Amino acid sequence: APSEPHRQAALHRQAQLTKPAGSLGELESLAVTLAGLQATNLPRIEQVCIAVFAADHGVCEEGISAFPQAVTGQMIANFVAGGAAISVMAKQLGAALEVINLGTVSPLPIDDGVIDEHIAPGTGNLARQPAMTDDQLQAALAAGDRAAQRAADRQADVFIGGEMGIGNTTSATALACALLGEDATALTGPGTGLTPEGVAHKAQVIAQALARHGTRPEPLAVLASLGGFEIVALAGAFIGCAVRGIPVLVDGFIVSTAALAACQLRPQLRPWLLFAHQSREPGHQRLLHALDATPLLDLSLRLGEGSGAAVAVPLLRNACALHNHMATFADANVSNEN
Amino acid sequence: APSEPHRQAALHRQAQLTKPAGSLGELESLAVTLAGLQATNLPRIEQVCIAVFAADHGVCEEGISAFPQAVTGQMIANFVAGGAAISVMAKQLGAALEVINLGTVSPLPIDDGVIDEHIAPGTGNLARQPAMTDDQLQAALAAGDRAAQRAADRQADVFIGGEMGIGNTTSATALACALLGEDATALTGPGTGLTPEGVAHKAQVIAQALARHGTRPEPLAVLASLGGFEIVALAGAFIGCAVRGIPVLVDGFIVSTAALAACQLRPQLRPWLLFAHQSREPGHQRLLHALDATPLLDLSLRLGEGSGAAVAVPLLRNACALHNHMATFADANVSNEN
Repeated sequence: APSEPHRQAALHRQAQLTKPAGSLGELESLAVTLAGLQATNLPRIEQVCIAVFAADHGVCEEGISAFPQAVTGQMIANFVAGGAAISVMAKQLGAALEVINLGTVSPLPIDDGVIDEHIAPGTGNLARQPAMTDDQLQAALAAGDRAAQRAADRQADVFIGGEMGIGNTTSATALACALLGEDATALTGPGTGLTPEGVAHKAQVIAQALARHGTRPEPLAVLASLGGFEIVALAGAFIGCAVRGIPVLVDGFIVSTAALAACQLRPQLRPWLLFAHQSREPGHQRLLHALDATPLLDLSLRLGEGSGAAVAVPLLRNACALHNHMATFADANVSNEN
Repeated sequence: APSEPHRQAALHRQAQLTKPAGSLGELESLAVTLAGLQATNLPRIEQVCIAVFAADHGVCEEGISAFPQAVTGQMIANFVAGGAAISVMAKQLGAALEVINLGTVSPLPIDDGVIDEHIAPGTGNLARQPAMTDDQLQAALAAGDRAAQRAADRQADVFIGGEMGIGNTTSATALACALLGEDATALTGPGTGLTPEGVAHKAQVIAQALARHGTRPEPLAVLASLGGFEIVALAGAFIGCAVRGIPVLVDGFIVSTAALAACQLRPQLRPWLLFAHQSREPGHQRLLHALDATPLLDLSLRLGEGSGAAVAVPLLRNACALHNHMATFADANVSNEN
C-alpha cells in the first residue's frame, strides 16, 4: 500500500512552497500521490519503463479492422527499428522501451530487440469461440508479470504498458462490455478508423461474442473468453507492478480495459494506477468512470502503443521537480497570505 | 503570415506516418501549425524564451488581493534566485528565463538577473483614476517589444510571456470586461485565493472601475485606463513576436487578456498564438472563446508566472519529434488502411 506518512509530508510541503495554496492544481496532486507511492520525500520520475505487448486476434476474420492483420508484425519491426510513435517518444523521454511478442499470424520478425513470449499465432475468433484456453490465459498473465519484474530490476520510477494488435479494440470493447454489463452498441467505436457502417458491423460482432460468452462476470473467465494475449499480459503486468511497488501510468482505451480487469481481480491495485489521457475511443469515458479516474490529458489521441501515457510523462517529471526544488515562503523570505 | 506551403507539406507528411490517420490528435495539429509558423519542414522547439513581466498595482489599496503587495518584489527576487515555480520549470526545460521589472512599490531588488524597465512604482488605482498615462502605456508596450527582440536575438523557437503583480487579476478582469463588454460579476474570480466575500468586494471594485472608464472600447484606451504595466508589456511582446515570426505559447487568464487586447490592436497576430492551458480563474473560458482558442491542457492551474505555458512545452517538443522522426508507411514497409 502507498505510504500515508509520506503523502501527508508531501501535502505539508506543498502548503509551504512559494505559490498560492492549490494553484498548481493537478501538478500538486501528482507530486503528493507519487511521494506516497514511492514512499519518499523526493518523488522522482527518472527511470521510465515502457513495455509494448503485441499479439494478433482471431476475430480479424470477421472484418472488424480498417487495417490488414499483417500490420501487427510489421509494427513490431517498426517499434524496434525506431520508426513508430512510441519509439520516438521513448527516445525523447530517455525511457527504456521493450517490445514483447505474444503471438502473431505472420512469422516473428528476427529482431534482437523483440522479447519472445509467443503463446500462439493469435487468439481464437472470440465471436465464435473462447479467445484462449486457461493455460494460455495464465501464460499471458505470467508474461506480463515478467515485464513488471524486469521493470523492477531496472528500478523503474514508473511503468507504462502499451499494446499493438490489429483487431484489439474489438476484444477490448467486448471485455469492457462484459466487465461493466454494457451493450455492444454503447461502447463500440471506430478503432483505427472504421466508417460508421464498419462500426455498426463491429458492434454486431461484439454482440455475438457477448451472447456466446453469456453472463459470467468473473474477470478471469471474461479475459479468457474475450481477451487478447496483449491485454491479458497488461493486466498481469499491472498487478506485478503494484506488488513490486511501481506506479503505473495507464494509457488509453485498450490499456484501461486491462486495468479494469486487473482491478476487479485485485482491488488493492487501484492506488498504483495514474491515468494519462482521455482517448477519442468512445468507450474510454465509461471505463474511466468505472475506475473513478480523471485523466491528465485530453488531446484527441487514439493511437495506442502506450503513446498517450508517454505524452504525460513530462507532467509527472514537472510535478516532481516543482515539489523538490521550489523554495518555501520561509526560505525565500516571501510573505504568505494575509 | 505563416507559410501555407509548409503547412500543406506538413499535413501531407502526417498522412504518410505509420499511424492511423489523425490518431495523434492535437499533436498532429501542433506539428502542422508550427511547420507553417516556422516556415520549415522540420518544426522544432529547442530554444524556449520565457519572459516574466512584473509590476505593482495601485488598486491594491482597495483590498482586492489575498497577498500583501510586498510579495511582487519578493517574488522577483525568488524568480532570479531559482525558487519560484517558473524558475524550476525553466531550468527543467533548458529555457532562457528573463525577469523584467516594470515598477514595484518596494525598492528594486539588487539582482543582476532582473531587467530594469522601471516605469513607476506601480499603476494608479484603476478604481478611481486611469491606471497609467499614455506615455507610460507606450513605455510598457516598448518594454514588451524589446523582450521580443531579445527572444529573436536568441533565435527563440517559441516565446512564453509570464506575469507577476499582486492585484493583477483585478486589472485583467477589468480589462477583459471592457474588451468583451461583460459585467464584472460575470468574470471576477478568486485570483490567488480570495474568499467568496473577497470575490464579491473585488467585483464591486471592478464595477466601479468600469463605470469610471465608461464605454470606450478602443484597446489602447482600455489598456491605459485599466491595465497593469506587465499586462501592457505582454501585449507589446506578443505583437513584437508576431512581427519577428516567433510563435507564442500563451499562459492563463492574465496573459490571455493581454493576448486579446493585442489581437484587437493587430488581428494578424492571432495565428502566431498557441494556447497552453485552461486556467481555473473563471473569466478565462470567456476570453478563450473570444479568441477562438482551444487550450492544450486543463490541469486546474491558477498560478501565473507563465507556468501553465511552461508545462505545455513538452507537448510541442513531442509533436515536433513525432513529425520529424516517425517512419512513413513506405519507409517501414507497413501496410496502410484497407
